[in-house]
Formats: sequence, C-alpha cells, structure tokens
Amino acid sequence: MEKLVVIGLGLIGGSLALDLKKRNGYKVYGIDADATHVKKALSLGVIDAETNFSEISDASVVIVAVPVDVIPKVIKKVLDNVSKNTLVFDVGSVKNEICKEVSKHPNRKNYVAAHPLAGTEFSGPEAAILNLFDEKVNILCETEKSDWKILDKALSLFKQLNMRIKMMNPEEHDRHIAYVSHLSHVSSFMLGKTVLGIEKNEQHIFDMASTGFASTVRLAKSSATTWAPIFLQNKENIIRSLDEYIKNLKEFKLHIENNNDEALKEIMNNTNYIKTILNGIE
Amino acid sequence: MEKLVVIGLGLIGGSLALDLKKRNGYKVYGIDADATHVKKALSLGVIDAETNFSEISDASVVIVAVPVDVIPKVIKKVLDNVSKNTLVFDVGSVKNEICKEVSKHPNRKNYVAAHPLAGTEFSGPEAAILNLFDEKVNILCETEKSDWKILDKALSLFKQLNMRIKMMNPEEHDRHIAYVSHLSHVSSFMLGKTVLGIEKNEQHIFDMASTGFASTVRLAKSSATTWAPIFLQNKENIIRSLDEYIKNLKEFKLHIENNNDEALKEIMNNTNYIKTILNGIE
Repeated sequence: MEKLVVIGLGLIGGSLALDLKKRNGYKVYGIDADATHVKKALSLGVIDAETNFSEISDASVVIVAVPVDVIPKVIKKVLDNVSKNTLVFDVGSVKNEICKEVSKHPNRKNYVAAHPLAGTEFSGPEAAILNLFDEKVNILCETEKSDWKILDKALSLFKQLNMRIKMMNPEEHDRHIAYVSHLSHVSSFMLGKTVLGIEKNEQHIFDMASTGFASTVRLAKSSATTWAPIFLQNKENIIRSLDEYIKNLKEFKLHIENNNDEALKEIMNNTNYIKTILNGIE
Repeated sequence: MEKLVVIGLGLIGGSLALDLKKRNGYKVYGIDADATHVKKALSLGVIDAETNFSEISDASVVIVAVPVDVIPKVIKKVLDNVSKNTLVFDVGSVKNEICKEVSKHPNRKNYVAAHPLAGTEFSGPEAAILNLFDEKVNILCETEKSDWKILDKALSLFKQLNMRIKMMNPEEHDRHIAYVSHLSHVSSFMLGKTVLGIEKNEQHIFDMASTGFASTVRLAKSSATTWAPIFLQNKENIIRSLDEYIKNLKEFKLHIENNNDEALKEIMNNTNYIKTILNGIE
C-alpha cells in the first residue's frame, strides 16, 4: 500500500487526505504541530496513523498543508528526508517566497509548488470533506524545476482529484491572487468587524441579516492562523489591492455625498460586467 | 376573484405576484413604467393582465415595488385612487423618507410600510421566483398609522408567504439596514470594480476566481436602478457605515505594513464571532 504523509491536518490537508485515500487507496499518515488536530483526524478517519519527520523517507507522496509562513521550513525538513521517488507538494496561497526559499535545496527536484483554488470558510480536521477539489483550478509554479517523473506523478494525482491545472510563474500568481482571493478575505473580514463594531445590539444583526449579508461576510469566518501569514507573505500585492479598493470606496462615497445618481449608476452598471466573467465559474 | 395589483414588475414585485397568485388565487394585474417589463411579465405568467392607475379602486391589495426614489410618489397616486378596504404596501429598502412623505395623505390608514428582507442578485420580471419569502423577516414600520383591519389583512398575507414579522420605527430600520444590507452591497460592488479595474487580463480572473471571490462579489451583479436610489435615500447612515468600514480597512492595512501578526490575528479571531451570530440565519 502506497504511503501518503499529510503535514497540517486542517481543511485542505484533511480534505486531500480523505479524498486521496478514497480514490487511490493510500495509507495515510498525519503530522500536525497541534496534538488535538492529530487526535481529531484519527478519530474522524481523516488519517490512518500519526507519524513524524524521521519516518517519511519511504513515503510516495508528502503534502505540506501548514500556514504559509511555516511552509518553507517544513518543505526543507521534508526534502532533507525524502527518497528519490517521493513527490512533495505544498498547497500555499502565496508562492513566490516559498519557491525562492526552497530553490537551492539539493532535493528541489522532488518538490512541486501547487495552489489548489479550493476551500470553505471552515477550518481544522473537522472541516475536511470529500470532493472539495473537483473541477477546481490548481496552479503550479516553476514546474521546470521539478523532476519530470515527480511532476508527472503530481499531475496524475491532481487529475485523480479531477482538478484543472494551470501553470504560472510565482510572481504573477501572487499578484493576481491578491485581487481575486486575498482582497475578498480582507473586505469580508472588515465588513464583519464593521457590523459587529456598530451593532452592539446583536439581536438586530441576527434579525436583519439577509442572505446578501451572509454571503458577503462568509469569508470572515475563516481561520486567523491561516490568513494572517498569507496577508503578511503577500504584503506588497495586498497593500496595492487594498489601496485601490479604498480609493474606489472613497470615490463611491463622494458620489453618494454629492447625490450623483448618474455616476453611481454608471459605476454599478460597469461593475455588473462581473456577471459575464463569473458565469464560467458558478 | 380578488384583485391584486403589482406596480413594479422586477425581482420583488414579480416574486410576490407569482407567489400570491399561487397561494391565494388572486387575479394579478401589473403596472410598470417599462413596457418591455409588462410584456415579459405577461409572457412569463407573472401577471394575468396589464392595468393602470385609474383602474385600481376595486383592488383588494396593491403592492408598490418600484425603486425607492419613486415609491412616495407612486404610493400617493395609489392612495388617491383606493377604496376603503384596499391594502397598499411597499417593499422599499429605506423607510424613513417614505413614511414621512405619505404621513399626511388622507388615506394613510390604507398603507402599510414593509421591507421584506429577501432577494437575489438578479433583476427584472425574469428574476421572479416562487418561495423567495419563506422564513424571511419582513420589517413593518409605523403600523400604528395603519387601519387595524388593513394591517390585519397585511399580516394574513405575509403569513401566507410564510414570513416572520418584526416591527421597528423607520429611523431605527434605516440605521440598522445600512450596516447589514446596504454596506454589503457597496463593499461587493467596490470589490468587483477593483478587480475588474486591475485585472485587464480577464482570463486570469476567470481562471483564478474561486468560490470565495464568487460569494463576496455576488451582490455586485445587483441592479443599479434599484440600488443607486437606496444609497442616496439612506445617505447619512450609509456614509457613516462607509467611514467606519474604510477606517477599519486602513487600520488592517497598517497592521499588514507593520508585520503585526498578532494584531491581525486578534482582529480576525474577534471577527470570527460573526459565525455565532449568523448560525441562526443560514
């Protein structure tokens, strides 16, 4: 039975464990800095057994699904211990820093830099679900630095998960993802904070929160442990996107102050174009 | 057969028409300033026939579902023409201005100020759907100014739609709704605008837009004709909520700039409390 090691038993690591065990029959071993995560993952059947870094040399695949600030250190530790045929991939939401950090490792060729664009607002082993990755896009970076057989093994695995694969360079990935993912998280967190801050009377939020608010604030349920390191590691791109976002909010506010009905309508009509773009992904 | 007149055949008016026809067997008549809306509503079976303001005196119920800036004028015109037993209600998302404007009308007692907290991001008669209002909250304002039999008729109708009813004064309604509905729409529209503005390469948005982005930007598909008047009519409350939102965004940005991991985590952990509050509405 092929051995799969998952490091970081949260939403993404846990879901990969569940799905790959089901689809490929791996024996799944888990590692997590948090002992309660390991315990939960075992009791939920997300992993078959606990393991540690000294026992991964015979693994067929090692997945690194820890917060992005810890990923480089963990990948290096894994690469120190792998055998020739072990595929190592991470699932980090920021890629440039990680790719740079591991680029000089003698076993760099065993590593594939991946970012599966999938998730929910929940976290921890109990958030692990089957079929999370079906039809989702998986972005791979600097694949030319991976051994071709290792990369091919990764491609087989991602195709088994029914993912669509897209190659990008890490700088481009980080620049784009700041807008289409990271900014959404900041805007949603700040919406939640704003409403919580003002509405001291919680009963009113509860009563008046319609489905529109619920969907816009959904990402504010996400894990701080996951997202703080992402915001810091993709700092420059996120700050640029936030500056643009704040500028647009101020401009919109000014049109409201000036009763500029026409400008408001023009902006909203133009933004409705997002419908056309999103039609493909829903 | 009781006569229901719906003025404004969009998402809300159309959905009320469909549902009340089905649940109560009304004969439904429609009025809309846009002739293509009337045509569509007729062909979709949303209404049974077109009518006009001079023919509403025998209506049992008249629903005003036009943009909020036009609502006061339309309600007054309707109240000029109703019989003693006609119930007139509107569905506007801002209530203070409307309540003030109609307060002196001799037939004020025929009117019930309502705001059903329901909707989707779609618009026009083709957006009309059944069961949109089930289990949703409907806020009623200044019910003491409605005739008790008229109000009771409204309560029966809303209960037939399976709605939950909550009384509020209009100032309080407008202040709260700015945070839990209107601010979500502005934040979502501006997210859409920001991403469209930066990502000249649309293919990348399309490829990288995950479900997180899709849900956060969903409201940016909403109708400008509906929302521009709402933003202007609830101007002061929306500006206050936007100021708070922008302040929070700037503060969060500063923590990112300063690599203040701890502050970011504290803010996100506190905001996660929104989970507890939203559990009731999802």
